[in-house]
Amino acid sequence: MAANPVLARSVRGNWVENLHRGAICVADAEGRVLASVGDIDRDIFPRSAIKAVQAVALLRSGAVERFGYSAPAIALACASHNGEPAHTELAAAMLAAADLDETALECGIHPPIDPAARKALFAAGGKPGTLHNACSGKHAGMLAVARALGIELEGYSRADHPVQIAVRQRVEEILDHPLTEGKCGTDGCSIPTWAAPLRRFAQGFARMATGTGLSPETAAAARTIFDAATRHPFLVGGTGSFDTEIMAAFGDRLMIKFGADGVYCGALRDSGIGFALKCDDGSVPAATAMVAALLLSIAEPDAAQKSLLQSRARRLQHSWSGQDVGWLEATPDVDTEHVLRERPLS
Amino acid sequence: MAANPVLARSVRGNWVENLHRGAICVADAEGRVLASVGDIDRDIFPRSAIKAVQAVALLRSGAVERFGYSAPAIALACASHNGEPAHTELAAAMLAAADLDETALECGIHPPIDPAARKALFAAGGKPGTLHNACSGKHAGMLAVARALGIELEGYSRADHPVQIAVRQRVEEILDHPLTEGKCGTDGCSIPTWAAPLRRFAQGFARMATGTGLSPETAAAARTIFDAATRHPFLVGGTGSFDTEIMAAFGDRLMIKFGADGVYCGALRDSGIGFALKCDDGSVPAATAMVAALLLSIAEPDAAQKSLLQSRARRLQHSWSGQDVGWLEATPDVDTEHVLRERPLS
Repeated sequence: MAANPVLARSVRGNWVENLHRGAICVADAEGRVLASVGDIDRDIFPRSAIKAVQAVALLRSGAVERFGYSAPAIALACASHNGEPAHTELAAAMLAAADLDETALECGIHPPIDPAARKALFAAGGKPGTLHNACSGKHAGMLAVARALGIELEGYSRADHPVQIAVRQRVEEILDHPLTEGKCGTDGCSIPTWAAPLRRFAQGFARMATGTGLSPETAAAARTIFDAATRHPFLVGGTGSFDTEIMAAFGDRLMIKFGADGVYCGALRDSGIGFALKCDDGSVPAATAMVAALLLSIAEPDAAQKSLLQSRARRLQHSWSGQDVGWLEATPDVDTEHVLRERPLS
Repeated sequence: MAANPVLARSVRGNWVENLHRGAICVADAEGRVLASVGDIDRDIFPRSAIKAVQAVALLRSGAVERFGYSAPAIALACASHNGEPAHTELAAAMLAAADLDETALECGIHPPIDPAARKALFAAGGKPGTLHNACSGKHAGMLAVARALGIELEGYSRADHPVQIAVRQRVEEILDHPLTEGKCGTDGCSIPTWAAPLRRFAQGFARMATGTGLSPETAAAARTIFDAATRHPFLVGGTGSFDTEIMAAFGDRLMIKFGADGVYCGALRDSGIGFALKCDDGSVPAATAMVAALLLSIAEPDAAQKSLLQSRARRLQHSWSGQDVGWLEATPDVDTEHVLRERPLS
């Protein structure tokens, strides 16, 4: 297996310290590759980067109408949130609307990701619960699917449960690619994650953005989901979240979502282009530098967007005393500038 | 620049998720390479992996005799400690012996690494201070050097201060390699870190272990330091520290120390062999899997040591609900088994 190219590196003082390899694919809804770096045919686990795709099962189940979920709830179903009050309260409300509470969640427990929320929780003598889990909105949505289908709730996170079977079918429809038990794992929040070629995720996000190749119902669901996520970016992440700040800066032009272990998926909604990225070693900070550099070259940012992306494509590192000691930066290999204009569709 | 080989990987379910590349060198004191993987001539930052080498300056300064530092203090000068009471109290005592306190430390502040120590600190209404910094023992030793030399204390962490010049000279003596401002950075604790070829660190640790090629005074200092670190492994790390548990398991046969961003250096003291390892992407967990696999093949472990190393060379990963979801493991490329017996010294 050939090594992917170095797409990010960290520099300390005047010497390169760490190298991060990876692959990037930019594709349209027909699967034409508009730009790529590295091996885009390798199967990767998308992890949380495809929550918006998984959420199609929520929209298609009828649960949204039945439980009165509005755009914020749909955004939270796409979230890896920071466990701030806005997130946990909405997740609790989603469960309550389906006559459930947090004890039904199978996502497991971790403290809030947001430092202030974590500190406030502990200062008040509280304990982390399932609502604080970054995936509680997605799980609340999956429970709502089970409720809407009138089926057993327990075990809804297992691959053989009808909820996960429905999610899998929607992912397969949107990726236009069969998923297989031979390339399957369990995510940190206990639901299955299925590996597929990187290029399929880029194409799938383009299909979500355009509706191309999807059934009318799925196309409508995809549009509703991207609208919800891009209009409520705080609910998709939270304070300090890259996804939140980038979607806030781009308005509804750009859908983006990270996944654990160095994955990003997204779409330029106005141009109907999808992108997907995997950092080989699983580093999220390195993947963030890569995707920021990618967006600099493909997203036609305005001055403010450009400034924000530049600050994320090359991020300063500090000592414990606050000195600048180096930076983490995307390398020029990520720079596909002009590619979308200069490379004919193939 | 050719890619180093994959030396560790993480597997989720039944599919490989992340790849970690790197280089390893095993060498004797004469610089003969007994086993190697990857590019061992590339210059790497050793970071905290060479604290034992830096500590030679402390021993050679006369500070140990003057301030009555015994083996535990010398071990703490080699430490990246967890900020547990045993560590912070000893660092405070080292400073007090030199008529100083924690306000003189230039290492910066972070909370204790040990979760229990951190929790206890916050529960008691305390705040993190310089003593909790993982490098406070090394910095206390560097301040003691300044005191012993009768020079200005302030700025002792800067590359142009006589303390750091003395440290640099000892590192150059032990590596048998000149360090250069052209490959220099600032460490997280604000002292300089100098890049040198990976093979030099392996050889340097072999020279420390054997005294070969060193002045009698430096050889004696090296022996005292390795004795202190290997006999007081808790002080070099702390609860749950890989370095601590491995040195405790091997007694004084094995010196080992990790460095930030995926570095390990060490020596098999009884056979006079040094080793050094750098994970290209800076992952410490991946580097730990690599070095555990390396030690399985070169350290002739007994049954208990072997069992411990195996559990670290392949470490289970869990979901937030506690399910086993995969593992991080060293790959067979690290397996240099029999190399030391079968490969003639070249």
